[in-house]
This record gives sequence, structure tokens and C-alpha cells, in this order.
Amino acid sequence: MVWWSNRRRARPEPGLRPSVVPTELVRVDFTDLAPEPIAFLGQAAAIQLEFFEGLSRAVATAPDLVSKEGLSAAAGVALRKHHALIAELRREGVEPVTMMQPFAAATERFREITSGDDWYELLLGIHVTSGILDDFFSRLAEGLPSDLGARVRVILAEAGAGGVLEQRLSSAIADVPGLADRLALWGRSLVGDTLLVARSALRTGGDDQAVEPVFTELIAEHTRRMDALGLTA
Amino acid sequence: MVWWSNRRRARPEPGLRPSVVPTELVRVDFTDLAPEPIAFLGQAAAIQLEFFEGLSRAVATAPDLVSKEGLSAAAGVALRKHHALIAELRREGVEPVTMMQPFAAATERFREITSGDDWYELLLGIHVTSGILDDFFSRLAEGLPSDLGARVRVILAEAGAGGVLEQRLSSAIADVPGLADRLALWGRSLVGDTLLVARSALRTGGDDQAVEPVFTELIAEHTRRMDALGLTA
Repeated sequence: MVWWSNRRRARPEPGLRPSVVPTELVRVDFTDLAPEPIAFLGQAAAIQLEFFEGLSRAVATAPDLVSKEGLSAAAGVALRKHHALIAELRREGVEPVTMMQPFAAATERFREITSGDDWYELLLGIHVTSGILDDFFSRLAEGLPSDLGARVRVILAEAGAGGVLEQRLSSAIADVPGLADRLALWGRSLVGDTLLVARSALRTGGDDQAVEPVFTELIAEHTRRMDALGLTA
Repeated sequence: MVWWSNRRRARPEPGLRPSVVPTELVRVDFTDLAPEPIAFLGQAAAIQLEFFEGLSRAVATAPDLVSKEGLSAAAGVALRKHHALIAELRREGVEPVTMMQPFAAATERFREITSGDDWYELLLGIHVTSGILDDFFSRLAEGLPSDLGARVRVILAEAGAGGVLEQRLSSAIADVPGLADRLALWGRSLVGDTLLVARSALRTGGDDQAVEPVFTELIAEHTRRMDALGLTA
């Protein structure tokens, strides 16, 4: 089956290496940065659906059943997060699909440019983008009304694809000559597009400067994920 | 994205129309027909994983978000069934992946020939094959040790993709000229391959004659599903 034929290739953005790794947690007040709850939930739900689709594709194209097993469990977690966010939209009294609609095209395009050219790039694409965006939306949820914010943070905190992706990628990097270099470049090229998605979730007119420390922190976490794979971020 | 490019096309088998529709439930003793519990669970788990993959593909290629939403819930149900069967394999003290392995190639091939040439055929493929096989494995579970059999029947009884598939297909058939004829042919061509999978689950050396009434019943249920879509079985 051809999975990768018509995809547009993302431009690598090698300038996005983090130069400063913060050593302690940065406090940022998200009150003025978080979007309206419904927009937040709509975008977060759309993004989890895309992670689910990416992971399903990873299941379907996995080279062995052990990988399929681990990835299918991770796909299940993304789907649970998606449906839990959908349930929060219903609780707000709105039609979930209508509220996801404004984010559908951008999210679909984001998936296309982060899917990569083969199974390994697909896996790293999910690892990098879900790593950054789950962190980011959890932080942003601090700016939601407190009950909702707490529930959303619980939803997003469920351990998902990270473990199985790291395991599969580490073993592939050990086995396939040249893969580490290719994936390092690929991982680096994903950060720019992912941070654009994060930025699009901020309330328009909010103080962008104020959120910069959070972006620095997200990139530091990204660097740690790449390090864990032995890849240069 | 090209999803349907390299697929082998199933040969239509127009001779498989049911000529007799039974009017009452046929009693068949499955004691001599059901396979060993572990083989049963391995094959059933592999099949649910394939349904999940088919439904995920239907999500990813859905033309609208409403379809995505309904299909993603159905994909979640198939995944839950798969993982519940995996849990039963663990309970039997065996490694689930090892026990699914013997069925992996046949199940993958089954998915390829039942995926169809477009989204509508994919949907009908899942509707027809999961309709028949969920019924069949539930009946076959009567031949398992009684505790295990009861649990398996509960697992397989969860309402899954049937509702959403029927809804999406009905509305497409009403909207797209010529689709009904094409899908009627496609639905008919799926029955032979699906019954072969069912037959492969029977204990070798069992009395094949004894199970014929069940096959007749499965085909009658299939006919009812096709009727509900306004399609000739």
C-alpha cells in the first residue's frame, strides 16, 4: 500500500535549535493568553484526532506485530483524549463537530507536513509534535476556568505514545545505518511548524512576549526527547 | 493521499446469494467445532485489529468531520475489543503477539481484498465483514470453556461500527447516482472471502456439515444488513 505518495514535504528549518536550555520552571501567567474555552477545546480535540490518525497509520504500516500492539495502545490513548475533549465541548452545550471545524483544515495540513516519508519519520513526527503540543496545551489550560482547566490537564496528562515511540525509534536507530542522521534533520524541521500551531492557539491580541519563556521550555523538552534517542536537536 | 493504489481486487463471487432464509434460530452444538481457546483468542484479536485498521483508514479518508467523529468512535470500539481479547490471552498465560502471529498474514490479506476501491467500498467492506465475523465468533465462543466463553461474548457484543456505517452508507447511496448498484455487487463479492475466514476458525477435523446451518444464518443476517441499505444481497 502506498501511504506516502502525494504528501508535500515540509521545509527543514535548521535555525530553530534551542540555544538556551532553562534550568528551572518558568512561571508564566496564562490568564491573558489562553483562548476562549470553546476554541481551546475545539482545537485540542482536532489535534488529538490528528494524533490518533497518525498513530493509526503507524499501526497499519508497522513492520511487525509487536510494534502494532504498542502503537495500537497509544492510538487508543489519543482517541480517548479526543473523545474526552469532545465530551467537554458537549458539557459546554455546543456541537463538538462545529467547534472543531475551524481547525480542521490547518490541523489536516499540519499532519500532512509532519507525516514524513516513511514509517520512521512518521513515528518521529508524532513523537515530536505530540510531545510539544500536549505539553503546550496542558500549560495553556492553566488559563481556562479552574474546574475545566483541571479536567483538561488530567485528560492531557494520560501517558500516551511517548514510551512506545521512543522504544521503536531507539531500536530502529540502532539497527538501520544512517537513520540517526536523517531523523535528526527531520526532527529539527518539525519544530517550526509545531510551534506555529501552538502559537495559533494563543488568544489574539495577547502579549506574545509573555509566552516566550514557555516556548523556550517546550524546545528544551523537545531537546531532551531527541537526546533520549541519541539525536542532535 | 493515495490509499487504494496497490490493492489486489477480490474476485466477485455472485454464486453466493442465499437461497434459503431460515425463519428460526438454528441450534448447533459448538463443542466439537470451536478451536482451542488460545487459537480462538489469537485469531479473534487479530481480526479486531484489522477492523480497527480499516475503521482508522475510514476516519483518515472521511470527506467530513461528522463522519470522522462517528467512525472514530467505532474505531475505538474495535480497538477495545482487540485489547480485551489480548487481555484474555494474557490471562491464559501466553504472549498475545506470539498467539496472533499465525493469523497475521491471512488477516492482513483479508483486509486488503475487502478494503475496496474507494471510501464507500471500504465502509461496506467493514460493515459486511465485521457483521458476519462478530456474529460468527460470538456463536463459536459457545464452544469455549464456559467462563471464558461468556466473557468473550460480552466483549464481542459491544455495539460497534454497524450503526454509523449504515448511516453513512445510506446517505451516500441516496446522494450518489449508481452507487447502489456498485455496492450491491461489492457486498456480494465479500461474502465468500469472509466465510472462508470463518471456516478457518473451525477446529480441524470437526464435522463441517454440522456448522452449515450457522453459515446459512450468517448469510441471512448479511442479507438483512444489505436490505437495510436497500441493496440486493
